[in-house]
Amino acid sequence: MPKLDLSQTPFRTGSGYPGRLAEEVVGRSSQRLGDAGGLTQFGANLVRLEPGAKSSLRHWHEQQDEFVMVTEGVCTLIDDDGEHQMHPGDCAAFPAGDPNGHHLVNRTDAPAAFLVIGTRTPTETAHYSDIDMKVVQDATGSKFTRKDGSPLTADQIGETKHG
Amino acid sequence: MPKLDLSQTPFRTGSGYPGRLAEEVVGRSSQRLGDAGGLTQFGANLVRLEPGAKSSLRHWHEQQDEFVMVTEGVCTLIDDDGEHQMHPGDCAAFPAGDPNGHHLVNRTDAPAAFLVIGTRTPTETAHYSDIDMKVVQDATGSKFTRKDGSPLTADQIGETKHG
Repeated sequence: MPKLDLSQTPFRTGSGYPGRLAEEVVGRSSQRLGDAGGLTQFGANLVRLEPGAKSSLRHWHEQQDEFVMVTEGVCTLIDDDGEHQMHPGDCAAFPAGDPNGHHLVNRTDAPAAFLVIGTRTPTETAHYSDIDMKVVQDATGSKFTRKDGSPLTADQIGETKHG
Repeated sequence: MPKLDLSQTPFRTGSGYPGRLAEEVVGRSSQRLGDAGGLTQFGANLVRLEPGAKSSLRHWHEQQDEFVMVTEGVCTLIDDDGEHQMHPGDCAAFPAGDPNGHHLVNRTDAPAAFLVIGTRTPTETAHYSDIDMKVVQDATGSKFTRKDGSPLTADQIGETKHG
């Protein structure tokens, strides 16, 4: 039925980021509520950030609108304009193609959470603001490269054992 | 900037419903947060329901996914399966094309509010579950008719002065 039972929606952890970049989002988990309800046109994820965790590497989307509402705790939105504290009920919008990279960080000692909506498109490119990386997504999956399309370097993604 | 100042986002009241049907959503107001943030691919509206108010006439969409999260108070979701109480944090999803008409009603003595996300599409048809009406939307606007496409009757939409 349309009303969702959030207690039955699994928490997903981990990340598609290559190599050690996955460590950047340790402490993040999310429930794919839109998927659980059978939606296909946009994602609606409830993301939980443990103290110190980040929503993602700071990035922006070429084709996909994104909308966020904080639902619990305090998140710090970091974008090109600086830092902005967000409390429950506070919202932010990131139009497709606006090259203002953004992410949310939990700098408090308590858990925080937010609802994030993002359009689904057949293909997408996202750009990372603080490192030399982009990702191209299509039906075959996600391909992370440097911004010029060349492979990521071992220095960028090497496992800790190399460090 | 991406973070929205909700205190500066106007509350819209009124309705596109024809004739006296507009009275069905008295007590409803909404802030178009996605529009305020420059989004175009989906609507993200914060809807406030005064005691007794309804979100809409009960309806479903042919082409547009819809997602709801209650943010304040208690809403009663009414759909083909019955009635479901929804508290802050509770969510519901309505996939495009699922003919399960739905709306939210505030049956409490306190205000209630919810965030609703709906895909934007160039054209759309929505069907009303409890009355003989549908609406076809395209670039020229919204056209309300009976389900067979014939004009609504005076009995359906006549002003109170005729009653």
